[in-house]
Amino acid sequence: MPLRPLRCLAASAVLLCVPAALFAQGGAANDLLMPKPASVHFAADGLRVGPDLTIALVQTRSPRLQAATLRFLKRMEDKTGTPLPRSIGNATTGTIVLDVASDGEAVQGPDEDESYTLDVTSATVHLKAATTLGALHGMETLFQLTQPSANGYMIQAASVQDSPRFRWRGLMLDCARHFEPLDVLKRNIDAMAAVKLNVFHWHLIDDQGFRIQSHVFPKLTELGSDGKFYTQDQARELVQYARERGIRVLPEFEMPGHSAAWLVAYPELNSGTEPNGIRQEFGISDTALDPTREETYTFIGRFLAEMTAIFPDPYLHIGGDETPAPDWKTNPRIVAFMRAHNLTNNDALQAYFNTRVLAIVTKLNRKMVGWDEILHPDLPKDIVIQSWRGGESLAKGAQMGFQGVLSQPYYLDAMKPASVPYLADPVPADTKLTPQQQQLILGGEVCMWAEQVNERTIDSRVWPRTAAIAERFWSPQNVRDVVDMYHRLDATSLELETFGLKHLSSEDAGLRSLAGTQQISALRIFAQAFEPVPFYNRYLEQHTSQLTPLTNFVDAVVPDPPVKHRLALASAILTQKGDASSAASAAAELTSYFRSVGASVPQVQALFPFAPRLRPMAQRAQQLTTLSQIGVQAVQYLSSRQAAPSGWKANSLKQLETAKQPSAIVRFVFQDTLTELVQAVR
Amino acid sequence: MPLRPLRCLAASAVLLCVPAALFAQGGAANDLLMPKPASVHFAADGLRVGPDLTIALVQTRSPRLQAATLRFLKRMEDKTGTPLPRSIGNATTGTIVLDVASDGEAVQGPDEDESYTLDVTSATVHLKAATTLGALHGMETLFQLTQPSANGYMIQAASVQDSPRFRWRGLMLDCARHFEPLDVLKRNIDAMAAVKLNVFHWHLIDDQGFRIQSHVFPKLTELGSDGKFYTQDQARELVQYARERGIRVLPEFEMPGHSAAWLVAYPELNSGTEPNGIRQEFGISDTALDPTREETYTFIGRFLAEMTAIFPDPYLHIGGDETPAPDWKTNPRIVAFMRAHNLTNNDALQAYFNTRVLAIVTKLNRKMVGWDEILHPDLPKDIVIQSWRGGESLAKGAQMGFQGVLSQPYYLDAMKPASVPYLADPVPADTKLTPQQQQLILGGEVCMWAEQVNERTIDSRVWPRTAAIAERFWSPQNVRDVVDMYHRLDATSLELETFGLKHLSSEDAGLRSLAGTQQISALRIFAQAFEPVPFYNRYLEQHTSQLTPLTNFVDAVVPDPPVKHRLALASAILTQKGDASSAASAAAELTSYFRSVGASVPQVQALFPFAPRLRPMAQRAQQLTTLSQIGVQAVQYLSSRQAAPSGWKANSLKQLETAKQPSAIVRFVFQDTLTELVQAVR
Repeated sequence: MPLRPLRCLAASAVLLCVPAALFAQGGAANDLLMPKPASVHFAADGLRVGPDLTIALVQTRSPRLQAATLRFLKRMEDKTGTPLPRSIGNATTGTIVLDVASDGEAVQGPDEDESYTLDVTSATVHLKAATTLGALHGMETLFQLTQPSANGYMIQAASVQDSPRFRWRGLMLDCARHFEPLDVLKRNIDAMAAVKLNVFHWHLIDDQGFRIQSHVFPKLTELGSDGKFYTQDQARELVQYARERGIRVLPEFEMPGHSAAWLVAYPELNSGTEPNGIRQEFGISDTALDPTREETYTFIGRFLAEMTAIFPDPYLHIGGDETPAPDWKTNPRIVAFMRAHNLTNNDALQAYFNTRVLAIVTKLNRKMVGWDEILHPDLPKDIVIQSWRGGESLAKGAQMGFQGVLSQPYYLDAMKPASVPYLADPVPADTKLTPQQQQLILGGEVCMWAEQVNERTIDSRVWPRTAAIAERFWSPQNVRDVVDMYHRLDATSLELETFGLKHLSSEDAGLRSLAGTQQISALRIFAQAFEPVPFYNRYLEQHTSQLTPLTNFVDAVVPDPPVKHRLALASAILTQKGDASSAASAAAELTSYFRSVGASVPQVQALFPFAPRLRPMAQRAQQLTTLSQIGVQAVQYLSSRQAAPSGWKANSLKQLETAKQPSAIVRFVFQDTLTELVQAVR
Repeated sequence: MPLRPLRCLAASAVLLCVPAALFAQGGAANDLLMPKPASVHFAADGLRVGPDLTIALVQTRSPRLQAATLRFLKRMEDKTGTPLPRSIGNATTGTIVLDVASDGEAVQGPDEDESYTLDVTSATVHLKAATTLGALHGMETLFQLTQPSANGYMIQAASVQDSPRFRWRGLMLDCARHFEPLDVLKRNIDAMAAVKLNVFHWHLIDDQGFRIQSHVFPKLTELGSDGKFYTQDQARELVQYARERGIRVLPEFEMPGHSAAWLVAYPELNSGTEPNGIRQEFGISDTALDPTREETYTFIGRFLAEMTAIFPDPYLHIGGDETPAPDWKTNPRIVAFMRAHNLTNNDALQAYFNTRVLAIVTKLNRKMVGWDEILHPDLPKDIVIQSWRGGESLAKGAQMGFQGVLSQPYYLDAMKPASVPYLADPVPADTKLTPQQQQLILGGEVCMWAEQVNERTIDSRVWPRTAAIAERFWSPQNVRDVVDMYHRLDATSLELETFGLKHLSSEDAGLRSLAGTQQISALRIFAQAFEPVPFYNRYLEQHTSQLTPLTNFVDAVVPDPPVKHRLALASAILTQKGDASSAASAAAELTSYFRSVGASVPQVQALFPFAPRLRPMAQRAQQLTTLSQIGVQAVQYLSSRQAAPSGWKANSLKQLETAKQPSAIVRFVFQDTLTELVQAVR
């Protein structure tokens, strides 16, 4: 790990450190690009953003491109505080010239040309692309190149040739377990566009709710939801919103499992096990559509025909995962059907189901996507397998000739630091796949399952980590510097906030609500010591269901907060013995951090009598007192190269071990870092 | 002003003080009700909110009431962190029984019964109301009565008889100057309901944009807007959303002035002066609809007929303000018309216009509302005058027999502290109006004009100040304790944040964007010294237009932040010589504040090189250094009862005078307080 010095604004209170200006390989002070382009060369100087800036479209002037250009101008205006003319010229003499050959396909697919080139000098910007899609990506790069300087805002001079490594770069949001209002989806789509993702995978149906209106089968939402669903107009509005931003909307209609919501509404589709209403518990349910009745396919056919009128995407996702379907082994009619059709087990029956559904999907002029479980040798090779089982399963599919999209380890509810999914490559450098097989790996998708998030917390689970993964999908394979990634991620995270995302503000809002006061200075510092536990640990500890209030302390704090990486970095500098000055600076930062979080504890404890929802943190507060002292001591021993007193190390490690036990559904952000520090002490 | 002691959690950093538990007249520790009910008696103890809580509807079980009950349960769950059963019983044995006689009128009007009674014991809650409207208000009171205690969350035992003082309690949002997306309006409507407002006045049209879709005259939005407008479906959705929450939607279709957007689309309506496109400048325009042509009324008739199919409210607002209409004096055809009809001046012509429009409105079965200017003796007495000119104009109307709604001094862009509009009464105690005339004063409306706000900043301009004004409209005349109001306003403000309002989070978001970093501890403290200047001062200083980026420092900081009142309170305690202990505590708080804001300056100055949009604050930063030192000194002299050195006072007042000069469109929150402190020094 390359170690860079940290610069502290002040040693008071809590971490005020900002990284020293980093000079990337290209040599520019302002290399905050994320995702990194395929090729970029920075030059000195740049173009000053002033009120005389003009923008022109030559060749294509499609409404979509014009609207995007006006949005770009407005964002530039807001970013730079400079009023800009809101008109679009058509001469090559504009300051910024967008030279776009065509608006591209009427319906965006994964094979559309997304490339662009960008030349920024101190006088002009030339953005060239074959399609509007490429131009949209280029404008985002241009926006990121715009940075503050001593002379106001400048667009960094650079020459960029860019195109994505993978053509399928998705984010899936589960809107079934908790419903997300349209504006939440819109701001997430804005953010996706900003980091050049191109597929919004909309998980619309699950046991907990049917979220898309059907006029043909109105009971699907009337009985299959709690009243929260997207109307067809809203779905169309979102599809249009996404298209304007260069993003496909891939709808998922989960079947035959995870189907309680279907079956509550239309019990005639049932294999046997009756859902006890819309399912409020999470986990895998036993309900399944009945694959043996013709009526099932008639129903699916009519439903999907209605849906394809709303969703123009060339692909359609049928779910297909986690279908234990015990009824298929016990329902005499189904057992008889399987015997008659020589289907030897549930997998075979599901493959039969998938083949039937595939015929429907194909007739509707769509290509089929499904989770790992749909992979079956009998299915044709133009389906796409989305792998939640991980790279090995994905590679196996490719070896069988199936196209695939990787989604593991991109599950955000695993609460892993951004660096983990960032380094996970859909086609790793050491892949055993042939070049031809590698071509079958279309890309990847980040997945946000929504059992434990709602509209107040989802943004902070999705962002900024998704921006790092977006870079994995877009940038060259060898872009893998984690420290540099985190540096750019901080900057990206700030820019994303301007779309109205709450990933940076929801923590304070949650803390205010927990504390019952706006005076949260101490609680804010205290919270810097914690992050949420992974989905499964929370599930074990809390047995979350749709009824669980998501207003706990764990819901306020965010996964992989910037401080976590900073501490790890400082620890690495200190323990790997960088130069003396860097080590001293790292020691100071660590000490300041441990002192301040430790000092916050009594003030937070003083809130407990008035804050019942904070009280479960009592044990964690006590542990923080102990661990923060250990932190201060460890840093002191390491800086002074003193040995610790006898027993200190063993006792400290014991305390750290104890802190690993579940409590209040949160964990210490410094658990690993402090363990490393303690272990490094003599 | 009754002075209460402050309790400090810690003296570090910036204000961490919270008010000591306040015991209101009724004697309850938890009297955080806002607006205060007409009558409330608190009892000891209360009802513990636990998972065994049940809720039942007896009598009416309208879908609207059921939906509201489920929302109430969800909010209770979130507030208390307690999973509650999501079912609604129908037996009087429920823990919470809602006894509601009827769902009320199909279309809510100002005369609908809004009263309710509430009895909370340690075992049950009984809420009784004649209509769903009353029940909605009662549920909000119940929600506010739910407060943390040593035993978890309790609903404070109380007996409440409540009904509003005024039947028209509105909030106007201008969605023309800056467009506000639907979700912004929805969260504002949620907040309105929480503080028992009942009229959302939707300012849909102005020179800067036509924001409501017309199918009959599609060019109104196609040419008369920048593409941002509400579809009819969206408008219906909002009307329904508001109705579910007991709020009327009063649409305003501004005419005949402020009409550039009409005329850009349909020039045939024009009196003469051609708009130069949709107007981007603010202020009063010369454009006006032509009141002399029959076609104008045909057009208006067809348009309003279309609109009344969307907006069921019994009232319809025609604007009518600020119509200088110079063309009416110069256009020969109009001059001839006026002469022929014996109309001696523009006022007379506008009264003619209003009479014609009134006939249309009446035929559409609506009552007409307009701004002061429509008041004319020739008009019938069932119109409603909305007064932006203030109480005197309102009273004059009432004396002439007109109904009225007061909107001045409830203009939020005047950036007055909440206490000012709070104390302004539509019918003051010393009114000269007869009881009959007083009946004509229907109530009041808070107005948020949107020249200088957008979706990122509007919430912080509207809330929490509007909650204080809502109390003025609802509560008895003698509820006027400003200190108590601010105490409850802080609590209310916190609750409102749970609707997704950004009034508490937008400041940090703005500061992060300005600073270009997430490390804003110092900047956050610095910002506690500033608030925005009033609308007109900003207009003078910046000449704001629709193109002005609203990403300045002034856009981040909020009007009348809690610290402003706290400082004033501490200053009053110190200078009015409360008891020694209170005075010492106040002195400590003031000193801590001035020290911390002063200490933040160098850290903020260190950001300037990287933050061009912060740099205009350079002068204010210097002034803050000086003034914060003066603050520390003043407090020291006052606490120690020492005289200041010769010249200190004169020089300090001079510095304060200098600080009043315009700079960076902000002013010091402590301008008045510090002046008082300095003047109190010997």
